[in-house]
Amino acid sequence: MTRDTLDAAAIAAHRAGLAAALDAGRAVLADGGSAIDAVTVAVSALEDDPHFNAGRGAVFTYHGTNELDAAVMDGQTRRAGAVAGVTRTRNPVQLARTVMEAGPHVFLSGAGAEDFARDHGIAPVDPAWFATPERLRQLEELKAHPQAWFDADMKYGTVGAVARDAAGHVAAATSTGGLTGKRWGRIGDSPLIGAGTYADDRAGAVSCTGSGEQFIRAGAAHEICARMRLTGDSADRAARAVLGEIGAMGGVGGVIVVTPTGETSMAFTTPGMFRARADSTGAHEVAIFGDG
Amino acid sequence: MTRDTLDAAAIAAHRAGLAAALDAGRAVLADGGSAIDAVTVAVSALEDDPHFNAGRGAVFTYHGTNELDAAVMDGQTRRAGAVAGVTRTRNPVQLARTVMEAGPHVFLSGAGAEDFARDHGIAPVDPAWFATPERLRQLEELKAHPQAWFDADMKYGTVGAVARDAAGHVAAATSTGGLTGKRWGRIGDSPLIGAGTYADDRAGAVSCTGSGEQFIRAGAAHEICARMRLTGDSADRAARAVLGEIGAMGGVGGVIVVTPTGETSMAFTTPGMFRARADSTGAHEVAIFGDG
Repeated sequence: MTRDTLDAAAIAAHRAGLAAALDAGRAVLADGGSAIDAVTVAVSALEDDPHFNAGRGAVFTYHGTNELDAAVMDGQTRRAGAVAGVTRTRNPVQLARTVMEAGPHVFLSGAGAEDFARDHGIAPVDPAWFATPERLRQLEELKAHPQAWFDADMKYGTVGAVARDAAGHVAAATSTGGLTGKRWGRIGDSPLIGAGTYADDRAGAVSCTGSGEQFIRAGAAHEICARMRLTGDSADRAARAVLGEIGAMGGVGGVIVVTPTGETSMAFTTPGMFRARADSTGAHEVAIFGDG
Repeated sequence: MTRDTLDAAAIAAHRAGLAAALDAGRAVLADGGSAIDAVTVAVSALEDDPHFNAGRGAVFTYHGTNELDAAVMDGQTRRAGAVAGVTRTRNPVQLARTVMEAGPHVFLSGAGAEDFARDHGIAPVDPAWFATPERLRQLEELKAHPQAWFDADMKYGTVGAVARDAAGHVAAATSTGGLTGKRWGRIGDSPLIGAGTYADDRAGAVSCTGSGEQFIRAGAAHEICARMRLTGDSADRAARAVLGEIGAMGGVGGVIVVTPTGETSMAFTTPGMFRARADSTGAHEVAIFGDG
């Protein structure tokens, strides 16, 4: 993802989608809503926007399906919910939230997760809802150039949100279609509590995107929280330390962090990261590359 | 699991299985083998032993199947492999090891994980291999007494191994059938890198058993390593601190830890934990309850 590979129309569409998701989450918080509600609303908006690799517009698996992963975590209680490999749930982040609220478990997968959805009143959608021509074209391009298998998908990122509410609680949510051409029931870091998603009021809330395997091996989201909690690192220092570890493993990506005091970090080692940030003072930022 | 609920024959069978697995792992290390080979061999032995809830003898799901999860991690490289929901792989820990060695991914699930197994020369077994009459009886008992759903399964624990080799490297492996009567494609902590399994030569190797949901929320295995690495905690102090956090969340369980200097911990908050430990000085211990 560089200025050379993104045309003006794509940039404008992504910026508009980011701003809409940011505003949806901000409205929840401005009304006195909770951080966990804000991240659920913001990520739901990104799932419904076909420009992002989550929900509608998710990348295709090797076998031509869309298989979706998502997670949420509430920093106040450290309760969490996650799903992997769902194919018929319009908003996987809302299913993850229902897993957290209503179920005895943290992490459900595959057809079983969708049985749970149905048992809890979440109606399935036709899998065609998720499919877009551009993502299908990307799968076909990847199959035509298999040597590009891992490089090519780095630009098709996961979505995530972190929030801090007026009561000082934090929450994180992450949702993704994973990697274009993924096989073998691959589960990446996004739905793994501690890898791609973590929230703990004693430290902060973290959502990650990037080369998921290295984020799993580093325990990235939990490690950022552990550094803040155990060493007193700032959010930005902890985020950059973990991205450095991931770099040493051969991985790249980015993280967003917010702490209970409102400190934030949006750090990345990719050329760009679609990102946005707002607070109750009126600050409002939407950016893609290192310089904006 | 108390002295009242385990009869003498069951105790003898579990002790014999533990001793056999311990000796298999110890033999690898005594021959100059690696920690990752030792834990793979030890856990494979426990998977093949029908007395333990992993591989043959795994508990049954709500729908009467055996669905198996496993993970391995090498502390030297922090490479890892994991599988969830496999039903036809005799030794899930060996499949997790193959995922680590041969695949581009860390975590595979379901039928896709078994496609990967076949692609890498691991022959499937008949699912009947895993089924034992005692585990089926336990499922039927649980269905007859659904109010006991969560308490009853605490005694049917996950298996795991940690090892430190002559070169000072550490590794961890964990394998399980999960919870009796599990539903909805539930994935517990065992195959989640950072939750039930973690290894890092800068700290130690950890394998966990217990109420998996709380271990996921605490990022238990990674948290133990983070405490050792970032605060200088001993293995035992870090293990007990994390079990304390899990207790505050309403969970119980146990962990085994070894560090690159050979320090160990086998801590648990359940009445007992089947466990065994040996080293190159000739020390050799097999125990179940707090006093042996």
